[in-house]
Amino acid sequence: MRRSQGILPHFQHPAQVIVAGFGAAALLGTALLVLPISTESGESAGWLTALFTATSAVCVTGLAVVDTASHWSAFGEVVIAGLIQIGGLGIMTLATLLTLLVAGRLGLRARLFAQAETRTSSPTDVRHVVRRVVVFSLTCEAAAAVVLTGRFLLGHDEPFGRAVYLGVFHAVSAFNNAGFALWSDSLMRYVADPWICLTVAAAVIVGGLGFPVVFELLRTWRRPQRWSVLTRITVAVTAVLLVAGTLVFLIAEWHNPKTLGPLDDPGKFLAAFFTAVMPRTAGFNSIDIAGMHPSSRLATDLLMFIGGGSAGTAGGIKVTTFGMLAFVIWSEVRGEREVNIGHRRLPDTAQRQAVSVTLISLALVALSTYLLMALTPHSLDKVLFEVVSAFGTVGLSTGITADTTPAGQVLLVLLMFIGRTGPLTLGSALALKDRTRRYQLPEERVIVG
Amino acid sequence: MRRSQGILPHFQHPAQVIVAGFGAAALLGTALLVLPISTESGESAGWLTALFTATSAVCVTGLAVVDTASHWSAFGEVVIAGLIQIGGLGIMTLATLLTLLVAGRLGLRARLFAQAETRTSSPTDVRHVVRRVVVFSLTCEAAAAVVLTGRFLLGHDEPFGRAVYLGVFHAVSAFNNAGFALWSDSLMRYVADPWICLTVAAAVIVGGLGFPVVFELLRTWRRPQRWSVLTRITVAVTAVLLVAGTLVFLIAEWHNPKTLGPLDDPGKFLAAFFTAVMPRTAGFNSIDIAGMHPSSRLATDLLMFIGGGSAGTAGGIKVTTFGMLAFVIWSEVRGEREVNIGHRRLPDTAQRQAVSVTLISLALVALSTYLLMALTPHSLDKVLFEVVSAFGTVGLSTGITADTTPAGQVLLVLLMFIGRTGPLTLGSALALKDRTRRYQLPEERVIVG
Ligand SMILES: [K+]
Ligand SMILES: [K+]
Repeated sequence: MRRSQGILPHFQHPAQVIVAGFGAAALLGTALLVLPISTESGESAGWLTALFTATSAVCVTGLAVVDTASHWSAFGEVVIAGLIQIGGLGIMTLATLLTLLVAGRLGLRARLFAQAETRTSSPTDVRHVVRRVVVFSLTCEAAAAVVLTGRFLLGHDEPFGRAVYLGVFHAVSAFNNAGFALWSDSLMRYVADPWICLTVAAAVIVGGLGFPVVFELLRTWRRPQRWSVLTRITVAVTAVLLVAGTLVFLIAEWHNPKTLGPLDDPGKFLAAFFTAVMPRTAGFNSIDIAGMHPSSRLATDLLMFIGGGSAGTAGGIKVTTFGMLAFVIWSEVRGEREVNIGHRRLPDTAQRQAVSVTLISLALVALSTYLLMALTPHSLDKVLFEVVSAFGTVGLSTGITADTTPAGQVLLVLLMFIGRTGPLTLGSALALKDRTRRYQLPEERVIVG
Repeated sequence: MRRSQGILPHFQHPAQVIVAGFGAAALLGTALLVLPISTESGESAGWLTALFTATSAVCVTGLAVVDTASHWSAFGEVVIAGLIQIGGLGIMTLATLLTLLVAGRLGLRARLFAQAETRTSSPTDVRHVVRRVVVFSLTCEAAAAVVLTGRFLLGHDEPFGRAVYLGVFHAVSAFNNAGFALWSDSLMRYVADPWICLTVAAAVIVGGLGFPVVFELLRTWRRPQRWSVLTRITVAVTAVLLVAGTLVFLIAEWHNPKTLGPLDDPGKFLAAFFTAVMPRTAGFNSIDIAGMHPSSRLATDLLMFIGGGSAGTAGGIKVTTFGMLAFVIWSEVRGEREVNIGHRRLPDTAQRQAVSVTLISLALVALSTYLLMALTPHSLDKVLFEVVSAFGTVGLSTGITADTTPAGQVLLVLLMFIGRTGPLTLGSALALKDRTRRYQLPEERVIVG
């Protein structure tokens, strides 16, 4: 407890810092994207389009009101990639710091930073964490970029410069769970290319798990009994959702001529898996969202709402929150007064935080869906999909984003911003507040949101 | 504690009793309604239609796969009214017993049954409660029937016998929140008749508040500071939802030519108020559900999911559960470790029950919506409305009930049954289990579900 108190010395008011940081990055991005130099045509994109795109990039959402490839110039695309990189690094760093802060008393921090156990300067800790997160992110992105570049070069006959550009852009977009693509149809043209799809899916999953979880997995993957509760829940829920999502899409879309129907059997499995990975919460698509059976969109809504890991770049309420809720309900149904995960007791505060994050998120999604339905002529099916995608910073769409009134676009901008900063803000506020509590029982806390 | 322990002597396994009771009533009703004598045409309605209608009546839902007035004979209609009466009395009695059981330690029971405070025979208590609930129900139904009969007789030129029949049937259907009507268009022809609409609305609200709340209100309505927490939450949330619902429908539907548009201004207010009352969870409609703006249907979905009072005949997760959740979240956002309502602390168990009921219900609605979308060609908008209506035992419909595959109808039957017995079962199991706890802090418990 004593040590962890100093780990975030500059975060006395973390909510303000987080909101101000993301807000400033979004506004800076807007100022750059509104310049004529940012568009292919040489005319300014206009403030709303620039604001929407910059917010979508910084919040690593991926919703777009204009076609990224044809509307923006190379300069604009680099700005977008930069915003994604800044947003993604910021999220991953914050999430990692919060994870360490919350888990501090239990030794996860000690396990990760055994060599940094100095008694004196806590700012060292923060610099240390930031450096490690940056190295981790750039390493993963570089690895994905190499594979993608190679494939574009050798498998799709792109010239070298363009292959590198495409490889780096999509590696950054994938690892940071941003979902921006440089083709109007996202990755639909590569639906049957396992090199592209599996590389992107791997980058998305690793980025979505997050640095602390991946780091722990790398060090102790052979001894799951030593995993922290965070890692256990994240890995278990992610695996369950990936398998369940793949099966649901396979069953519902197998014969659908607009989605899996035209593919051969291995292609069907690849596309269903890819479609199950992307709502967590990357937002690329290799099949047409608007062509899916409406029930598959509803399943996607649920996956997008749950989102990815707490410690990574994913959005949504997070698999940890979802997993904790499942344990809370299971304990209640069994009539047990304590909620146990593994050999640890889940403290009441963590339960209440999980419940609060989920219910506030549900209320926000319901209210936003109501407002967007009132503001647009689109069906509940499509509006709900759009709202959950914006809230969960997913970026998948049935195609109505551009076809939304300015008021509706402003609503989506707010939703992307709240969906991104809200859980982080809430999580950090709760994490800091909660440090003042006395240690009572052998319990392990897990970050929420 | 000692006294309340004996109040439900025969409910050692209340879940089994409740499920068996409703199941037996539904099967008995099915056996009667499948007889040729039950239909207008003299031909058997078939098992599925009989099962659907009997379940809908016993669970006081009101969804119908056939037009009640034209399909069923007078005998069939009397069977339906009888099933509604049995179901409604059963629900109201169980809810009252559970309320007393839960509130027992706090004196609500003593306040209601001061004269029954004998030291000996607890079965007296149960008989006493049942008698009071029956007298209360029949009195309210009679009052509503008199007004409705008078209006049908004098205002709509119905012959005396038919006016009485219509008055009694709709009074029973309204007070028990059943929502069965003897016109194909429900009460749309009386949209501008305040006698009919306000009487039905009053019966629905009183039945939905429930006996313990109405009884307490009658005795202490001038001293709200003496109301129990149950009564406070029920009254406050009901009032907020009625006002908010009325405003939402007024604003969204004011110019809609299919709903409020053709009415004069007082008619608009009457119809909007009626439409705000009915999702809690009566299920009559005076405007066309299919003609409403989709956003109004979404608002109705939320109102139907929340439902009515815990102590009455309404369905849904209940306004008490919803109110408790609001307090839980509000406390969490304000960083308070205790949840206080009025001058009472809400115990952790009640919070967890409220959360569990809500999350399980959400999961059930989501899963059922997914399945019904897979089974039918209808849109998310209409399917979600139908599912929430069945789960909340509301009975409103966009008209797709009859246009649903047999498998879909079976799903709706299960959903009506679970929506009705689930919360009662869960509530009673939790209420009984929880009596063994030690009294720790000045806290007041409120029934959930
Ligand atoms: K995304
Ligand atoms: K009903």
